[in-house]
Amino acid sequence: MTKKIILSGMRPTGRLHIGHFVGALENWIKLQNEYQNYHLIADYHVLTTSLNTKNIYQDSLDMLIDWIAAGIDPEKSPMFRQSQIKEHTELQLIFAMLVTVNRLERNPTLKDQVRDLSIENVIYGHLGYPVLQAADILLYKGNYVPVGEDQVPHVEITREIARKFNNAFGEVFPECEPLLTKSPRLIGLDGNSKMSKSLGNTILLSDSPEEITLKLRKAVTDTQKQRKGDPGRPEVCVVFSYHKHFNTDEAPAIDSDCREGKLGCVDCKLKCAAKISEFLSPVYNRRKELENKTNYLIETLINGEQRAREKAVETMKEVRSVMQIG
Amino acid sequence: MTKKIILSGMRPTGRLHIGHFVGALENWIKLQNEYQNYHLIADYHVLTTSLNTKNIYQDSLDMLIDWIAAGIDPEKSPMFRQSQIKEHTELQLIFAMLVTVNRLERNPTLKDQVRDLSIENVIYGHLGYPVLQAADILLYKGNYVPVGEDQVPHVEITREIARKFNNAFGEVFPECEPLLTKSPRLIGLDGNSKMSKSLGNTILLSDSPEEITLKLRKAVTDTQKQRKGDPGRPEVCVVFSYHKHFNTDEAPAIDSDCREGKLGCVDCKLKCAAKISEFLSPVYNRRKELENKTNYLIETLINGEQRAREKAVETMKEVRSVMQIG
Repeated sequence: MTKKIILSGMRPTGRLHIGHFVGALENWIKLQNEYQNYHLIADYHVLTTSLNTKNIYQDSLDMLIDWIAAGIDPEKSPMFRQSQIKEHTELQLIFAMLVTVNRLERNPTLKDQVRDLSIENVIYGHLGYPVLQAADILLYKGNYVPVGEDQVPHVEITREIARKFNNAFGEVFPECEPLLTKSPRLIGLDGNSKMSKSLGNTILLSDSPEEITLKLRKAVTDTQKQRKGDPGRPEVCVVFSYHKHFNTDEAPAIDSDCREGKLGCVDCKLKCAAKISEFLSPVYNRRKELENKTNYLIETLINGEQRAREKAVETMKEVRSVMQIG
Repeated sequence: MTKKIILSGMRPTGRLHIGHFVGALENWIKLQNEYQNYHLIADYHVLTTSLNTKNIYQDSLDMLIDWIAAGIDPEKSPMFRQSQIKEHTELQLIFAMLVTVNRLERNPTLKDQVRDLSIENVIYGHLGYPVLQAADILLYKGNYVPVGEDQVPHVEITREIARKFNNAFGEVFPECEPLLTKSPRLIGLDGNSKMSKSLGNTILLSDSPEEITLKLRKAVTDTQKQRKGDPGRPEVCVVFSYHKHFNTDEAPAIDSDCREGKLGCVDCKLKCAAKISEFLSPVYNRRKELENKTNYLIETLINGEQRAREKAVETMKEVRSVMQIG
């Protein structure tokens, strides 16, 4: 039996952090044996919010390093840049004819971005983000898309477009389904509910143990706990949230020691930094190795792009045939 | 000195009529020696208002026949289908990032179509019509675009997009200019200000002299002129408007004979039909010949598409280089 297909991707906006690892990569790695995964480096999508493309190539390579270091097997899962497979733009244009402006304006993710980034005039291509995403998914006939709760509306638009196309021209596309990622989201070092590069509150997969310790030192704890003897409230402490995730066994003891004033923040942070470093060390070490293997990385990309292109070309042949556009 | 480049095209929606000939083709033919013309069969643009693609291939071939029969020289000017040059969709996606939704919503042509076609919910790709058009023009680095007054706003959007791209990434595109077509628009057989296939009020380039006579018989004249002896008002008569265009020499005499009740409508219409048939006969005869030369037509298309693709690929190389997306 052929494996079901999964499409997942990220925008290459710089080095990845442990939030990406816990929220997405761990999941992709789990899925890579049971499914045929395609991993998209969504470089065209970067343009929806920034026209600065100076670092786009290096950012794409950095993301590729992070993916492989995290455990994605390039033999199993092609990794490729959107901009190198022209078929994405072809299918995007065709799909643009299958969805109304109103429908796209109702997209809650767009509304959030417009608010968060204080966008006054929405860019046409930004409004069309889910149209390009639908092309990304359906070009590979993705059956499943691993997403967080917030991305479910995008998958819904993809399903609608697939249905509309199939009705208008002929059955080509599956109605893909979201595969909800269950991992809780990691909060930022500053206590922000989102760990994000632009907020500068991240621990990167490329951070050394020393860097992790330095970052943890500045992490936000319970502001009412001034010195070691003070009783703390782990439920409001960023560091404790990391203990729960990366130091599950010791977390109950840390919880009570903190509350009883037995454990000071400095010790607690060092313990946490050590645990995170330990957790990340295989990724960090593989990453160090990969950083010097530029040829291998480029070959991996070219190979991934070849395999993705084959599938994309095959799908577009079907699309052109049912649409009778040769 | 290299010739300046002109991009012009039409949507393949069926056989062309004398309105197309007088309004556009005559002009294209005049320009083909002085400029390097590229002629686009805009089959993707058809999708903005209809998903029925059953006849799109035959309609494209029919339009090609009409173009060549009218006098466009395939040796000089490549003729090609938009859907066969993937670079159109690539550049369209990139340009989608350079224009706001508001800007496109202010496009008067869209507003007219929304009203004329009673569109309730604008399709995303329809809103983006001028974005794809900008890609069509700039992919060939068009310096001029021959258009009617109503298309000038589209060219303005193309100029804005070119400027935006050049500022953001580097000087690649010329700021193309509209080349206003001066021919007056032919009115329809039914008196409608527009001759149009969907209104069924056209004289086709493929109509035989008999068909032209039959159509002219039903043309709208001055309703106050009931019989030959009645004085007529040429200024409200469709047939007279054709005399002015296709029978310039005799028009003054026809004008006075009609007003004086000397000329009846039946005779006047026969005279007009004969003049239009005479005018169209070289086109009609070439058309008859071409209809049986399917191989020649397909070769012409393939050759045109090859030459267009070369130019398109060259432009996209520059685009990718300045954008640093390889």
